[in-house]
Amino acid sequence: MGSMTPGKLIVFEGGEGSGKTTQIQRLHDWLSQGETLQALQRHHGVAGIKLTREPGGTALGQHIRHLLLSPSDTPILSNTELLLYAADRTQHVEETLRPWLTQGYWVLCDRYTDSTVAYQGYGRQLDLKLIDQLNQIATGGLKTDLTLWLKLSPAVGLARMRQRAQADRIEQASLRFHQRVADGFAALAQPMADGRANPMSSGPIAAVEGDRSIEAIAAHIQQILQQKLAQWYPLLSQKPAQSHSQTPSQQ
Amino acid sequence: MGSMTPGKLIVFEGGEGSGKTTQIQRLHDWLSQGETLQALQRHHGVAGIKLTREPGGTALGQHIRHLLLSPSDTPILSNTELLLYAADRTQHVEETLRPWLTQGYWVLCDRYTDSTVAYQGYGRQLDLKLIDQLNQIATGGLKTDLTLWLKLSPAVGLARMRQRAQADRIEQASLRFHQRVADGFAALAQPMADGRANPMSSGPIAAVEGDRSIEAIAAHIQQILQQKLAQWYPLLSQKPAQSHSQTPSQQ
Repeated sequence: MGSMTPGKLIVFEGGEGSGKTTQIQRLHDWLSQGETLQALQRHHGVAGIKLTREPGGTALGQHIRHLLLSPSDTPILSNTELLLYAADRTQHVEETLRPWLTQGYWVLCDRYTDSTVAYQGYGRQLDLKLIDQLNQIATGGLKTDLTLWLKLSPAVGLARMRQRAQADRIEQASLRFHQRVADGFAALAQPMADGRANPMSSGPIAAVEGDRSIEAIAAHIQQILQQKLAQWYPLLSQKPAQSHSQTPSQQ
Repeated sequence: MGSMTPGKLIVFEGGEGSGKTTQIQRLHDWLSQGETLQALQRHHGVAGIKLTREPGGTALGQHIRHLLLSPSDTPILSNTELLLYAADRTQHVEETLRPWLTQGYWVLCDRYTDSTVAYQGYGRQLDLKLIDQLNQIATGGLKTDLTLWLKLSPAVGLARMRQRAQADRIEQASLRFHQRVADGFAALAQPMADGRANPMSSGPIAAVEGDRSIEAIAAHIQQILQQKLAQWYPLLSQKPAQSHSQTPSQQ
């Protein structure tokens, strides 16, 4: 979206217990509290920051999320699950992500297409071509500007989860399943021979080692964002506050 | 399914107000009450008759049906709707239809793949290739043995619906939409130049004029079934009751 609007889509990915939820909130706070967002708003037309997630980023998606994650008596078939995730994403992209990006928001999203490739493709071993096709249909080609992959061994992640009160349906799956999911994220993060991102990936993926303290991980993510800011808005650091006159003054 | 087990999949299709729900019950009663089912059970290993529907033929599907048909504040996007129907069907085919057919049941089902072609393909004008592909994924290739299409002009069907207390989300769509749906059913029911069924159709489709009395329509459907019975079980009418010894005696 970068070339058309100042909006950016930044996605957090990772296995169970990788710390996505904590880190997405940390990045949101860091961006909101510092001077970075102010500068982006003043000089680059950024509207603000929004938080969302998949599944469940829309009113309909909340219901779909409940169907997907609640343990139930009759098992949800793998293809049913895949189609429900695709339905949730279709609604989320058109109802939420695209409108926010068009309005110039930075959107921080918990999970996106890479999760479907990793969980349903590698984890459940469904057809990758079908998954790619459903991702295309659901996203209408909307790629991320940055995907932060919180990389953590499944054994460590699952041990963290077990300390929580109740595991959901996906978290209950076997360690072998979660190892395949981790392999899936690793494959997506691996650039092609010519250096471009894997075409099945959501976009450029940055790996963040998740087996560290919350502070250390948050600092690493902030460092990656600093680099991206310099790349996305080359004039940001050089542009001092006195250049207000070239941009709308109301914030 | 006919060649492998005595189970048969018989689907009722049609636009809003076409009388599917009434007629599927009538056929169920007619088959159950007459001697036909007894003869099928005695001589042909038919296990019995089951009634089901799409969407909503499974526990999960009931929830999906509710999402699809409840009027809501935010509109469900056409592609979201398509994927939700596909998710419902995937679960229904594997959890319900296939097991019943394998066990030798006659399954009477209210709506199947033809509805998706007619409503989402013709009505909402989504890509027919995509719909065909999703139908293939959802059904795993399970075709009907007979599809009964209750053919009725949309204006008449919608007028009938308006007499009911409350229209659901699909029923609220415009007359023009429902005319396209009717065109879709007509296209599916049209055989190919070589006489075979339309490859996008659920299977062999018999058109039943729905602009008649409940009794007249039920009689027509019974007549079609008599012909099918003679075709599916050629020895049925010739086989007298004394040949019991060749089949299990308990009913």
